[in-house]
Amino acid sequence: MSRPLWIVIPFKFSDCKSRLADCLSPSERMGLAMAMLQDVLEAVAGRGRITIISRPGFLAQGWGGGAEVRISDLDLNEALNEMIGEQAKGWAEDMLIVMADLALLQPEDIDAISAIPGDVVLAPGRGGGTNMILMRSPAFRTCYRGISFPKHQKMALDLGLTAGYFYSYRAGCDIDEPSDLVELVLHGRGRSACLAREMKLVDI
Amino acid sequence: MSRPLWIVIPFKFSDCKSRLADCLSPSERMGLAMAMLQDVLEAVAGRGRITIISRPGFLAQGWGGGAEVRISDLDLNEALNEMIGEQAKGWAEDMLIVMADLALLQPEDIDAISAIPGDVVLAPGRGGGTNMILMRSPAFRTCYRGISFPKHQKMALDLGLTAGYFYSYRAGCDIDEPSDLVELVLHGRGRSACLAREMKLVDI
Repeated sequence: MSRPLWIVIPFKFSDCKSRLADCLSPSERMGLAMAMLQDVLEAVAGRGRITIISRPGFLAQGWGGGAEVRISDLDLNEALNEMIGEQAKGWAEDMLIVMADLALLQPEDIDAISAIPGDVVLAPGRGGGTNMILMRSPAFRTCYRGISFPKHQKMALDLGLTAGYFYSYRAGCDIDEPSDLVELVLHGRGRSACLAREMKLVDI
Repeated sequence: MSRPLWIVIPFKFSDCKSRLADCLSPSERMGLAMAMLQDVLEAVAGRGRITIISRPGFLAQGWGGGAEVRISDLDLNEALNEMIGEQAKGWAEDMLIVMADLALLQPEDIDAISAIPGDVVLAPGRGGGTNMILMRSPAFRTCYRGISFPKHQKMALDLGLTAGYFYSYRAGCDIDEPSDLVELVLHGRGRSACLAREMKLVDI
């Protein structure tokens, strides 16, 4: 019997998607980031309680789907690990961290990662990142920044936690750099893909 | 009742992996390309008849697993489409094209693509490529080069063939550019991953 899911989506909105600055204006980047967040919210809808975590200044209303918004001054890992710590007492829900730029994500991907056994399940992102983390233990802590995947593997190992892996094309695809935009245009089905096609971001 | 599989692996051996020239010598590139081909051969072993297609000069012996080697002067699409044409009379086997640099590929990925319905099943590669194509119809023709995925989609549509899609992290990961090497080092389990780790190609 699996516990209900608490889905946590970190969203960086100030100077968001800065690595796309060469091909998009600041307002275009913001528009694309918001559209991707909406696509992610649609993918996770109905799969559990949803919290968007962002920084002061982020608009807390109007996200639909009953998503709660939590504002924090802390950096990404501190904010996430604070939430894990609060949740630790009782651990009534498993926790699923989902990056806000997984524009290809589909509901079946949430079901698929949920079906993989392990105290922690890691979904790799292209380039060494960790695009989703499912935690079934209160002991785990995130160590994002840089090539985080082996850090998360080591964290699980050091804590004596069993690790599962969710290798997924869609979950592995975070839209960060200009070369990622072709993924969005070719394989996306949501509003961010429509936006990218309308903006003719990729010449195909 | 599905037909047996004919697995065709195109392998470019002259000036292979040229986009890795900035970080690998010609002989290192050749060694890595050969190791990846061996990993792919292991992933497809036992799943059907295997043919490696390459250019004049490629060593035809010693590939193990009963793989046949076919040498052709034609370019990639001409060579593949010639083989499809020969196979068309009778179509006793379905045809699965597998790129030789899918270093993360596992046997279960071959089973997974085989389970997807469609006259043709396309496995996208990162950046718009098509890393595997399963053909259950003699009508299809390949159109590799550049962003081939939408070309293959259009080909299926124009021919009135149903298309299935196999979205897979491992099958989507062809090792072409320096930025792909981190995938091999972090997620590979075969001899090419060992080689990449020994060569310390990525600083993690």
